[in-house]
Amino acid sequence: MNRIYAVGIGPGEERQLTIEAKEVLGRCSVVIGYTVYTDLIRTIFPDKKFISTPMKQEVARCEIAIEEAQKHGEVAMVCSGDAGVYGMASLLYEIGKNHSQVEIIVIPGITAAISGGAVLGAPLNHDFAVISLSDLLTPWETIERRIKAAAKGDFVICLYNPSSRKRHDYLKRACEYILEYKSPDIICGFVRNIGRRGEAKKLLTLKELADTEVDMFTTVYIGNNQTQDINGSMVTPRGYKNV
Amino acid sequence: MNRIYAVGIGPGEERQLTIEAKEVLGRCSVVIGYTVYTDLIRTIFPDKKFISTPMKQEVARCEIAIEEAQKHGEVAMVCSGDAGVYGMASLLYEIGKNHSQVEIIVIPGITAAISGGAVLGAPLNHDFAVISLSDLLTPWETIERRIKAAAKGDFVICLYNPSSRKRHDYLKRACEYILEYKSPDIICGFVRNIGRRGEAKKLLTLKELADTEVDMFTTVYIGNNQTQDINGSMVTPRGYKNV
Ligand SMILES: C[S@@+](CC[C@H](N)C(=O)[O-])C[C@H]1O[C@@H](n2cnc3c(N)ncnc32)[C@H](O)[C@@H]1O
Ligand SMILES: C[S@@+](CC[C@H](N)C(=O)[O-])C[C@H]1O[C@@H](n2cnc3c(N)ncnc32)[C@H](O)[C@@H]1O
Repeated sequence: MNRIYAVGIGPGEERQLTIEAKEVLGRCSVVIGYTVYTDLIRTIFPDKKFISTPMKQEVARCEIAIEEAQKHGEVAMVCSGDAGVYGMASLLYEIGKNHSQVEIIVIPGITAAISGGAVLGAPLNHDFAVISLSDLLTPWETIERRIKAAAKGDFVICLYNPSSRKRHDYLKRACEYILEYKSPDIICGFVRNIGRRGEAKKLLTLKELADTEVDMFTTVYIGNNQTQDINGSMVTPRGYKNV
Repeated sequence: MNRIYAVGIGPGEERQLTIEAKEVLGRCSVVIGYTVYTDLIRTIFPDKKFISTPMKQEVARCEIAIEEAQKHGEVAMVCSGDAGVYGMASLLYEIGKNHSQVEIIVIPGITAAISGGAVLGAPLNHDFAVISLSDLLTPWETIERRIKAAAKGDFVICLYNPSSRKRHDYLKRACEYILEYKSPDIICGFVRNIGRRGEAKKLLTLKELADTEVDMFTTVYIGNNQTQDINGSMVTPRGYKNV
């Protein structure tokens, strides 16, 4: 059987892998991925064959995975978080379409929304929307439209890719769209380097967030109208009890 | 130190726990939770003290957790999936507010959106909204407004609690709202009993979903305008490549 496992490794430490993900990685003869992630896995399984490819070579990485699976049977493509959340899973299916002898299996992982949520408290404990601010692969008009729709619907909003070297003001622009629908006092938060060295979190208001610069290793949360700051934790009530 | 760990155990099998969740459960002297979940943990740690409480006794369950933490140091409250996604984490913070000597820590888990997504393929590989159809704790008007906002924004939509004994037609109603904005041919899918005995998945169109009854052990996915059925897998492209 020729198989590619698209394995989500969680935010960044071994203990955030699922037991299944660790088992599957142990079994695969080859592990493919962006250098940062293969390095993490190398510390756990030093004797494996690793193939690292740089960022922005996603299509090539999928083609390598297919070739390796054809040669070696079971191989793993590793992604941070979950492979199906702004990760490589969908591209693997698209490119694998014409290689029916290679099966693709997604092994779920803890995505940044969930791991960062746990650091902040319970920000996603009611309906939420996940939006990436990266316009490399999505027109900005679509991003703008989604942010406004989510704000109008009073979803808790979780932002991935909130910044990059070329896009310093994207978070500010996102906050300004949201401010058209929501109070400047809405509770927000962000977490940098979730589950990694230098993990740091901050709670602040929407107005303050609009004037904050974050980097690309950050996940951002904008509360709904009910979200509270409870002794420094960001908490969106589910509604069982109104305290 | 008195601590309550709100531990997400994933969809239902030991191997879907994270390594951290298993470690923390091993360390806690008492495990509290809804019977179905404590039973799973009991098979892994037969010698622990378990306190099971029935559904709909959420406030009592949190109060027991606080008492037990005051007596025993470190205790765990277990939830399926992630404790911060329609789980007990937020209520623990709310009730724990007045017990400052008890610290609350969330240990992230694989939520149903992510585990079910992996079963279907890669349905959530672009911006998505997570909505619960349960109106026990949320007015139906809010649910309706959020479904329409998410459909208008062309989010992939993931529905939790799509049905219950008293709410047979809620999924149909949700689909009808979405049909106001989206084509009846949009690719949808659902997964029943994710990671449990009897796991089953199905891909279908939005029009077909509107005429389908699912039960409460099901998570439902409604694609965006780009979502495809690739050889039986539900795949939402990220946009790297237009195949
Ligand atoms: C291309 S996406 C990959 C997401 C990944 N597949 C997941 O499921 O978490 C990269 C974005 O995810 C978020 N992210 C991923 N890992 C993170 C971490 N350890 N700490 C903070 N944010 C993280 C950031 O917003 C970052 O810009
Ligand atoms: C009250 S919510 C709890 C969600 C849980 N905390 C999580 O993060 O997955 C219950 C709903 O989650 C979804 N769900 C949870 N576990 C599931 C499973 N194993 N299979 C299918 N759906 C599941 C269903 O939609 C169900 O109605």
